[in-house]
Parts: sequence; structure tokens; C-alpha cells
Amino acid sequence: MNTDKIREEIRGLSDDKLFFNNAGSSLMPNIVVDSMIDYLQQEEQFGGYEVANRNAKLLENFYTETAKLINCKPSNIAFMTSATEAFSKALSSIIFKEGDVVITTADDYISNQITFISLQKRLNVKIIRIKKLEDNELDLEDLENLIQQHQPKLVAVTHIPTNSGLIQDIEAVGKICRQYDILYLADCCQSVGQMVVDVEKIGCDFLTATGRKFMRGPRGSGFLYVSDRVLEKKYAPVLLDMRGAHWSEYNNYELFKTAKRFEHWEVSYAAVLGMMEAVKYANNVGLNNIENYNRKLAETLRINLKNSGFKVLDIGNNLCSIVTFCGPDNDLENIQKVLRENNVFFSASYKHSALIDFTDKKVDGAVRLSPHYFNTLGEIEKVSDILKKSLK
Amino acid sequence: MNTDKIREEIRGLSDDKLFFNNAGSSLMPNIVVDSMIDYLQQEEQFGGYEVANRNAKLLENFYTETAKLINCKPSNIAFMTSATEAFSKALSSIIFKEGDVVITTADDYISNQITFISLQKRLNVKIIRIKKLEDNELDLEDLENLIQQHQPKLVAVTHIPTNSGLIQDIEAVGKICRQYDILYLADCCQSVGQMVVDVEKIGCDFLTATGRKFMRGPRGSGFLYVSDRVLEKKYAPVLLDMRGAHWSEYNNYELFKTAKRFEHWEVSYAAVLGMMEAVKYANNVGLNNIENYNRKLAETLRINLKNSGFKVLDIGNNLCSIVTFCGPDNDLENIQKVLRENNVFFSASYKHSALIDFTDKKVDGAVRLSPHYFNTLGEIEKVSDILKKSLK
Repeated sequence: MNTDKIREEIRGLSDDKLFFNNAGSSLMPNIVVDSMIDYLQQEEQFGGYEVANRNAKLLENFYTETAKLINCKPSNIAFMTSATEAFSKALSSIIFKEGDVVITTADDYISNQITFISLQKRLNVKIIRIKKLEDNELDLEDLENLIQQHQPKLVAVTHIPTNSGLIQDIEAVGKICRQYDILYLADCCQSVGQMVVDVEKIGCDFLTATGRKFMRGPRGSGFLYVSDRVLEKKYAPVLLDMRGAHWSEYNNYELFKTAKRFEHWEVSYAAVLGMMEAVKYANNVGLNNIENYNRKLAETLRINLKNSGFKVLDIGNNLCSIVTFCGPDNDLENIQKVLRENNVFFSASYKHSALIDFTDKKVDGAVRLSPHYFNTLGEIEKVSDILKKSLK
Repeated sequence: MNTDKIREEIRGLSDDKLFFNNAGSSLMPNIVVDSMIDYLQQEEQFGGYEVANRNAKLLENFYTETAKLINCKPSNIAFMTSATEAFSKALSSIIFKEGDVVITTADDYISNQITFISLQKRLNVKIIRIKKLEDNELDLEDLENLIQQHQPKLVAVTHIPTNSGLIQDIEAVGKICRQYDILYLADCCQSVGQMVVDVEKIGCDFLTATGRKFMRGPRGSGFLYVSDRVLEKKYAPVLLDMRGAHWSEYNNYELFKTAKRFEHWEVSYAAVLGMMEAVKYANNVGLNNIENYNRKLAETLRINLKNSGFKVLDIGNNLCSIVTFCGPDNDLENIQKVLRENNVFFSASYKHSALIDFTDKKVDGAVRLSPHYFNTLGEIEKVSDILKKSLK
């Protein structure tokens, strides 16, 4: 992995800027933006339909590159405008009835939590969250008991919560779901692009991911993985459109075979192309390389923060490239002021985004730095120094 | 309306090209593409979140311009990636139960038809299509009888079918729906941007529209209108995300007040901006001007085609800027060959896209030319001559 070359391929980098918001919306490789601009310029010349026809073969690479990324077939992949759309489309293929149970975690993404609460309020679906062990890891025995007791319609787990460095053990959850033949969704919004994510190892039926974060794709892009198991059982969004089926009789249709039936027919093909280039770029760098490099960056940053006296809020046996913290006195505001003054790009989260987690941690929020493989250890030291000064 | 100026503001126009596929995907005004490219270039410099913050006020203009376009308040507007997403989001706010009735038309858009059939197959919702009169207009007495008999959960009507020049009388349908207080969706995918569309006059609860067609916006854009009536009754997508509600308690949320709760949180803001510029452009030209000009183009084209011996397939009292036809012998293939050879941009539709309509018309499909206000009467004559020659 050649970090110098990777940095040269980002027009957005400069010496006076420290970019650590990859868990928010990352800096795209030049090729991503160049390909999108070129595509839009074709569309202004010939109109969107003609250009999509001309580029049909190229656009199909989105499916092959994404399949390569997560170790499946192109026919398991659907383009989505975000992980949340992917999540929503996956759930829309399940006919929920009153009393059905969904099992999830306390650390699931806020949008997922709101979706579950909506299902609970409006369809009387019962939402149960897996207990956590003292070390902040999922209690897998509890999960197994819950499955035996409730025969849930779905188990849904967020791989990496958006407001903490925790990596939840989605492979262990997958083993249990497979054992009991339970439908299983893994939300990999924050993990895809930052580390190796392998659907064979996870054993999920649905996997949701976004483009703009660690994947370094454009806004308004993402994907949904759908297992062969689920495709064969004819799962499809209940509000299916013509992307999903052939209108064969006045009151009947034939469902198409691949995961594309989860897509909407209309889409920004500039975004599909940009996302394809982003996935291809990550595949070429190698997710193994990215994962190993990122681990070093985040570990160094956590050590520096702890040594300076910050409260690092990431708790778990296996942590990722999201680093969350607050001041020794739980300060969030002064830290942010100092970061802004020093042209550091970061995020901050407040309680309503991670209600259960932040309540447990007894904090009102967290400042979040999320380095990625184009960052250097030098930049980690720089931001650590800036933060250290904020304490004085 | 200054056609010369309008034509100068389209880099995609040239003398050797006849663009008549505005019902497919139109040519964008330069400002649409320029604003999107500028926005993407900002994103590559600073990341998507920072840039969205910096442009927050500008992006809000999407709501004010769109509200102006269809005569409502900005709080009634949600950004969507397409009319089909808008349709799907609107329907997802309705909890359908077995035996519920949806009333629609034989000319509804294929994707809507497939959605209805899916609801029928999977939720046992009953789909009833309003009868048509001999002149191809909706039988409004039949609609009133159906409403009295079935108390439908929803009436959904496509304003302009995608494969015919027919304008369905959605204002008359609206009056009846208001009289009986029935939820009413108007799919204006093909009409918004081509003519005046006024939600006050239509009396609908939902209105769906796309960007890429007569609106001249980018692919992957559209909008949903939601009436105050529906917002006050707390309709929201059942698979709500954090765009729709504030996570207030572990198992509860507070719904946000405006139509934005129908959006997904994540979106391509480049597309929002491009769509805003497209709507603003149309507002500035004036929808009244556009409608009057377009009527002349389409009428002239239909007369020319009939005079040359083509079968014009548009039947109705009120026709629009979509002109569909086939050869005297029902030919579609030779016509398309000649159009392609002469660099004419058009669409062709086959039976599966308009199963009921094309079966009634006893044709296998139609060639579709859809002129718009940047086209000239001179271009209409040119394409008419080209087509005339194809008959020899």
C-alpha cells in the first residue's frame, strides 16, 4: 500500500487541513469525481437514457466490483442510494404481522432504531435488544435464548455503531442465525471500506452499506446484498416497481431473479459510476491492507488521547477506526472549538443519536475522529498535539 | 418566452441533432449541470458533510422553488430520487390490511401497476380500475359508485400515462375524493414541468414527480408533495428513518412536522441542487408559457403524422406533449431505424409497458416523440419530413 500515491490521488488533501471525518463523509479519490463529472457532461449532451444505454456495460462493473468487495456474486448486489435505503428495502420484503419479533442490539444505528420503534408503534411488532456483557460485547447466550423463545422474524445487527469504536461480532451472530434458520440482516454502513467484510463468513441474508463513508464513494450511493437463500424464497420489496418484475398479465407479474429487484428503476447513474470507481479503488488497494493500516492509526490516536487525559469512550474487545472521546470533565464544546480553529475535520454526536449507549456511558455526547488509510501517523500526532493544547 | 435564449442555455443542442425524448430523460439547462459539478468539486475538497452545512441555506431553495411550482408551502415538499420512490414512500405511510381497496386506472404507470399487483398478491389488497368512457376518458360516475361501494383506502391516478398523450382529468377525480374524504394520490411524473400543475386545483393528498423528464432536472431526483391534511393525521413512512423523527426515549420518538419526514436522511445533495436549479429555471420561464408553447408543437406533430398516414395512438379530449404512433401497418422497427439514422432522439415502448392500453389499441407498441419548449416548429417539420420519407 503506497500512502504517498493514495494521497496524490485526492485533490481534497492539503498541508493545512487534517481530515478525520471518514465515518461521516470521506474525501473521494479523484477518479470518483472525474468519472461522475464526465458522465454528467455526457448526459447534458445526449440525455440520460441514451447515455445509460451507451454505458450499460461499464455500469455493470458496479455489481462485479461490489461482489468482489464482499465475496459474493454480482447477482446478489443491488444499488442503493444509502445504507438506510438498503435497510428499508430489505425490511420492506418482510410481511410483518402483529406480535412478530425483531431482535436487535442496543448499539444499532439511530435510523434503524427509529424504524424498529415505528414497526412497534404501528404494527405491534415486538422489538427486543440483545443484552450486553460487562465488556460491552453482545451476550450471545441471551441471543440464543431469545431466538428459542420468540422465533423472531428477523435478527438485525449493526456491525459498527456510528457513535462508538465498537465492532460487534456479526460473525458469531450469523452462526447462531444459521443454526436456527433465522433471517439475518447485518448493517455494515460503517465497516464496508474500512475493513474486510465477507458475507460468507458473516452468514447474513441481507447486508447494507453506504458509499459516502469509509467506502469513499459519492453521496447518494450504497448497496444491498441479498443472499441466494432469500432470492430463491422470492423475497422482494412489497412496494415493488418495474425494476423488480415483468408485467405479464393485467393482474400478474413475473419476478426478476437477481437482487436488482430490490432497486428502484430510476437512479442517478453518475452516482452508480462514482460508487463503482470507489469500490474498485478500495479493491485495488486491498481491504486487508486498509484494515491493518487503519488499526495502527486508531490505536495510536486512542493511546495519545488517553495519555493526554481525555475520556476515550470506545469500549470493546475489538475496536475500529472510529475514535470517540470527550474531555476529562465531559467537555465537548471547547474540544470542537479548538479542532475547528485548527482546520481539523471531525464530527460530534449528541445523546439523541446514540440514546442507549450514551446513557450507559453517562455522557451527553462524543467528539468523533475517524482516520482512514490516506491519513498518516504524522497527522495522528498533529491532531493529538492540537487536542492536548485544548486542555490547557 | 425567448426560445433562442433557452436554446443557447443548453450545451447539448446542435444543428445535426433532433432531441424529442423529454418524456424519457430531457436535456438539462447548463445551470443544472454547472451547479452539480461545482457542488461535487466542493465535496471532493471538504467532504460531503462540511459542504452540506456550508450550503444549507442554498439547498433549502429546493423546497421553496418546488412549492412555487405546484402552489403549496415548502413544508409540503419532500425531496425524492424519483417519482417511483415518491410513490412508494407515499404508499408506505398507509397500513394496508387484507381486503382493503385501492382504486386506480387502466392507464396508470407500469411501476405503479406492479406495486398494486404486489399489494394484491401479498397483502390481499383489492385493486379496482376505473372504467373508461368511449372517448378514452375516465368514467367519473363509475369512480363515484366504486367509492360508495368500497370505501377505498386510496385512489391513485396517473395524470399522464408514460406511453400515450392522454391527460387524465385528475382535478375531476380530486373533487370526488374530497367530497367523500378519500385519500388521493396523483402521479404527475410526466406532467410536472410540461404544464401547469396546481395541487390546490387537484385536491390531492400526495403528488409524485420526477426530475429527469419534462422538469429537465438530473437523474436520481424528484419530489413528493404531502398535503397538510395528511401531515396533521401523522402519516409517515412505516419504515421511518432519522430524517422523520427525533429519538426521544429508548422505545419512542417524536415525529417531525413537515413532509421531510418522508425523505431518507441520506441523499445526493448535488442532485438536490441540480433539481432546485431545474425547477427554478422552469418557474422563471413560466409553466403557463411552457404549456401553451408545447401544445402547439405536439398538435402540429400529430397533424403532420396523420397527414403522412401514420397511426397516431393518442386518444382523449385533452392531449399533451407525448406523441405516440406506429406505421400504417403497425410498423415500429423501420420507423426507429430511420429516426436513428437521422440522429433523432426518441423512445419506443412495447406491450409489457402499457399492457392494458396497448391491448385495447390492438398494437404491440408505440414510437414516442416528446417535444418540449426548447424545440422549435422548424424541428417539428424536420422530424415530420424524416418520418414521411420512412414510408416510401
